[in-house]
Amino acid sequence: MTKTPEAIRWSGGVRGNLHMLDQTLLPLELTELAFGTGDLARIYEAIQKLRVRGAPAIGISAAYGVCVGVQDVLDAEKEAFLAKTAEIIAFLRTSRPTAVNLFWALDRMTRIVQKIDREFSKECFEAELAAEELLKEAKAIHEEDQRLCAAIGKHGEKLLGQNVGVLTHCNAGALATGGDGTALAVIYAAVAEGKKVHVYADETRPLLQGARLTAWEMVQRGIPVTLICDNMAGKVMQEGRVQAVIVGADRIAENGDTANKIGTYGVACLAAMHEIPFYVAAPTSTFDLSIRDGSEIPIEERDPREITHGFGRQTAPEGVNVYNPAFDVTPAKLIRGIITENGVISPVNRENVRKVVGE
Amino acid sequence: MTKTPEAIRWSGGVRGNLHMLDQTLLPLELTELAFGTGDLARIYEAIQKLRVRGAPAIGISAAYGVCVGVQDVLDAEKEAFLAKTAEIIAFLRTSRPTAVNLFWALDRMTRIVQKIDREFSKECFEAELAAEELLKEAKAIHEEDQRLCAAIGKHGEKLLGQNVGVLTHCNAGALATGGDGTALAVIYAAVAEGKKVHVYADETRPLLQGARLTAWEMVQRGIPVTLICDNMAGKVMQEGRVQAVIVGADRIAENGDTANKIGTYGVACLAAMHEIPFYVAAPTSTFDLSIRDGSEIPIEERDPREITHGFGRQTAPEGVNVYNPAFDVTPAKLIRGIITENGVISPVNRENVRKVVGE
Repeated sequence: MTKTPEAIRWSGGVRGNLHMLDQTLLPLELTELAFGTGDLARIYEAIQKLRVRGAPAIGISAAYGVCVGVQDVLDAEKEAFLAKTAEIIAFLRTSRPTAVNLFWALDRMTRIVQKIDREFSKECFEAELAAEELLKEAKAIHEEDQRLCAAIGKHGEKLLGQNVGVLTHCNAGALATGGDGTALAVIYAAVAEGKKVHVYADETRPLLQGARLTAWEMVQRGIPVTLICDNMAGKVMQEGRVQAVIVGADRIAENGDTANKIGTYGVACLAAMHEIPFYVAAPTSTFDLSIRDGSEIPIEERDPREITHGFGRQTAPEGVNVYNPAFDVTPAKLIRGIITENGVISPVNRENVRKVVGE
Repeated sequence: MTKTPEAIRWSGGVRGNLHMLDQTLLPLELTELAFGTGDLARIYEAIQKLRVRGAPAIGISAAYGVCVGVQDVLDAEKEAFLAKTAEIIAFLRTSRPTAVNLFWALDRMTRIVQKIDREFSKECFEAELAAEELLKEAKAIHEEDQRLCAAIGKHGEKLLGQNVGVLTHCNAGALATGGDGTALAVIYAAVAEGKKVHVYADETRPLLQGARLTAWEMVQRGIPVTLICDNMAGKVMQEGRVQAVIVGADRIAENGDTANKIGTYGVACLAAMHEIPFYVAAPTSTFDLSIRDGSEIPIEERDPREITHGFGRQTAPEGVNVYNPAFDVTPAKLIRGIITENGVISPVNRENVRKVVGE
């Protein structure tokens, strides 16, 4: 089983570089982008244009983005350094609205900034040492995510039988995280346990993360995969090919309502109609306990041209209205369980969420 | 309200030409193909490659295809003429497997061939007169379809309120028929009655008939339309934007089970979960009373490259398995009503199908 190349990595010290696979070019080109001093705007663009995507990976990239950003002020005084850091964090917060891991990671970086403010004196301030604290935190976020993915895989694989068809939507794999993924980590763990898993990958319009990324990860690792169009999910369920659905998440409310890639809600409805268990796999950093339910999750709407000009060719008439929400919200009642690094939340309700996610 | 250009027309007499809009080039190019003597294989290819598509339009094209085919034998003796005609019909029957209108139209042409056999003497046989009988029948099929579409529209529009969002999948419009369509005829009739209709058009992967054809028909006629990806249907229903779903059909079994474009079943499930009425609109020629239920309908599987290389660009990794069924079957229980030229079948069951479709 080959490992998928790392979606994100950091090389060097505080003056080092952030590297990302450009996921918009997959599966045809395996291109690693490098970001160094002066490249903060390019990192922002990479997040916004989905060169890096997946809730955990967005959080990790943003944390490293702060480290790239502060490379501009490695000779600054304390006040200038802190002001710049706050500005960088505020800027990165606007890159995408839905995945809460972005805000969670930037909040962690903010706490380091506050710690720097507390613990570093104004007089003997060394920006480079402060930057090291930030890099340490970004690396911690990254490394923690690897462990979380492994734990999610371990908890989740127990939910799968010895010989199962698993449908997934979008990509919640190694490319979407710092580790082995969330939904796909469950599949990887099941395969490692000797289970036979056949993956059905929804292509996931408009940007085809299922066709381009999930199918690619499966082919890379030699796991049997069948690519289908999103509108074929009902038929493969009707034909009895699917025993479980597992997807990732971009934000989960206190009651378990889950925002994930557009189309997830439809898949959850189909799973319910076919009495197939529908699971969400996500680290606890994807929970937003500040919101009561899914109605409070902001849903990003993206450029209509993703739909009308998606394949390098115009596929809809001029002047047509387009609705292009990037996410939808699946109500908790349709979710059999949420697989976290701390265990599986099931049944999905406020009490159980609080119990597993804590405060 | 502009009329959509005719999807299919015949010009001239028995030595005339069949003309078709090349629907694979829409909406970017409005190109009419012409077929004359010697072009039978090109007509077959046009049906197979979906240059013409939609169950009624396939039937009409095949009927005219017989007329183009016999242009080769307009000087033949009776026996040779009949043999050739049988061969042409057998050939055209293999062009696509699911839409029953193809077989229905070719059966009608076969009955004319039988009539020619009975009524034309061997000695004074004039192939050109026989060909005229065939052309008369093809034109009758075509003209009847126009009336059927109008009647479907009239019966169906009564099911819609004064101000409604209607979701449709694939294209069951003027481009799919000899007239104003089936599902879209209902919308056109409602608009003609002064109702406000907002259409949600599923793009309909892999071949995007919704994006390319339905959206185009709506823009042409000035009817408000919003294009969505197939996986957004759940979200627009969840948001309360849709009060009815109307789709066409490729084959309907005796019990009302309906084969239609892949994805229709998923939409029907979503409509059921959201308590939105789901209607099928189709002429009685789409019913196949020889089969008890949908399990007997042959489902065409098409080239995986429609999914992996759909728009002149590879969007999935080499070596990935693909499942590409062109149709799915929606069970009768999910269908609120089937709108035919003879009225609406509701509730959908054997008895009511037999009553409205007859023998």
